[in-house]
Amino acid sequence: VTDTGLDAHTGGGIRPLTKPTPSRRPSGAEAARTVVEVCDTGALATLTTDPAGYPFGSVVPYIVDGDGSPIVCISTMATHTRNLADDPRCSLLAVEAPGPGHPMDNGRVTLLGTAHLIADDHGAWRERYLERHPTADVYVDYGDFSFWSLDVTSVRWVGGFGRMSWVDAESYRAASPDPLGTAAAGALRHLNDDHADAMLAVARAYTGYTDATSALAVRLDRFGLDLDLVTPRGETTGRAPWLEQVDAADDLRMAAVALTRAARKELGEESASAH
Amino acid sequence: VTDTGLDAHTGGGIRPLTKPTPSRRPSGAEAARTVVEVCDTGALATLTTDPAGYPFGSVVPYIVDGDGSPIVCISTMATHTRNLADDPRCSLLAVEAPGPGHPMDNGRVTLLGTAHLIADDHGAWRERYLERHPTADVYVDYGDFSFWSLDVTSVRWVGGFGRMSWVDAESYRAASPDPLGTAAAGALRHLNDDHADAMLAVARAYTGYTDATSALAVRLDRFGLDLDLVTPRGETTGRAPWLEQVDAADDLRMAAVALTRAARKELGEESASAH
Repeated sequence: VTDTGLDAHTGGGIRPLTKPTPSRRPSGAEAARTVVEVCDTGALATLTTDPAGYPFGSVVPYIVDGDGSPIVCISTMATHTRNLADDPRCSLLAVEAPGPGHPMDNGRVTLLGTAHLIADDHGAWRERYLERHPTADVYVDYGDFSFWSLDVTSVRWVGGFGRMSWVDAESYRAASPDPLGTAAAGALRHLNDDHADAMLAVARAYTGYTDATSALAVRLDRFGLDLDLVTPRGETTGRAPWLEQVDAADDLRMAAVALTRAARKELGEESASAH
Repeated sequence: VTDTGLDAHTGGGIRPLTKPTPSRRPSGAEAARTVVEVCDTGALATLTTDPAGYPFGSVVPYIVDGDGSPIVCISTMATHTRNLADDPRCSLLAVEAPGPGHPMDNGRVTLLGTAHLIADDHGAWRERYLERHPTADVYVDYGDFSFWSLDVTSVRWVGGFGRMSWVDAESYRAASPDPLGTAAAGALRHLNDDHADAMLAVARAYTGYTDATSALAVRLDRFGLDLDLVTPRGETTGRAPWLEQVDAADDLRMAAVALTRAARKELGEESASAH
């Protein structure tokens, strides 16, 4: 888990039988940008005024500025807005939907910083906000609703079990979200539901766990995919790189087909038909 | 919306054509207890130590004590635990999954209070925690994980559009969760997917909107159900009471059948076949 400190407990399990194929991973900054981009609603934490100084969580839809700063549309009548007017310190927690693996092995990010009212240019944000949140048409034009931006000063990223770090704000702002971010969840479902055999071949060929008996794709990014593995020696995790970096969601299907073919060739299995 | 202050903007729309049948509603305290009971994972907000005093959101699975106090199992190595050790003030935000209606018309509760380490009786909580979170078996027995309880001092309940209140801690603790809480989401899906005609009959007979042309059941509790309505005059909302209070999920199906029959009789429609 991670938020719960599980990083110290992972990785002590069984060893790969052969050398895993090396695979690059997104940086913490890239992974954090991706989580924030993929989600569109978060938990805003503000500081109460009376009694003063309690951390107060509330639900907010958001959009993301070009540098990863969240923009929210909130009412002067709402508790969190009154809190921010009194003390602008806050955080926004974005949590990816649980994937195919363990329910706590999902990405989440806490953006710490201070919020400020965007006094001008309501119109410009309005359009982008409604594009992402069409059902916000019921409130976005009320006079008491305004856009606020969160100026990020520090980022806590949790990528799942044993993967987490603090990310400095400059690196976060400079990073790009993974191009497969929004496509990943659907692609993982498809790979596991319809191509479990392919995932197992990929696991055996590239993760070093040549004795894997089942493989579940739990995460993917432009560099590769993470797999939860079962072997006769116990459960473990592995990672396989795409043959070439995948920079567009449209290329993901062909990358998976190519990787599966290469895996089967590597394993000496018969040439697989394309799916 | 609510967190965003939308309560001030609702209810200004069209009027019912006949007098709606009166229907009791759960109190804010009951509704808050229900949201906390139905959810099992929340956003914990704690106060950072360095820099000091920023509100920090993180994800925590939880269970609920007999008086509605959340119990979490967290590691001494995790940021939120270190925060709590330094300053026990915190909140837990529980958010119901969006229902069939507007994505922000869902229930959420912020429990404000202070956390304390449960020094004894780890074993007793362990069993109940694993019952609700079976996949927590990967961390619950590590030595750095302990149970903490949140002593609730104040409750902010948001029930959806235009339904929200502060609830005092004593009322919250004394209230019971709605007996239909965990069954509600599935029942609403079934009513809308398979019995849209019945929902429309119920809406016409009981909400006063006799000109409704479609009705979507968006919430239900032991006293009745809330409906999003479309009429030739515009969109609105209504509520219909069950014929008798429903105190068990097993009785919900018969209550819906009985209400539909009564509605059709009221409307002078032909006697409906039981579904």
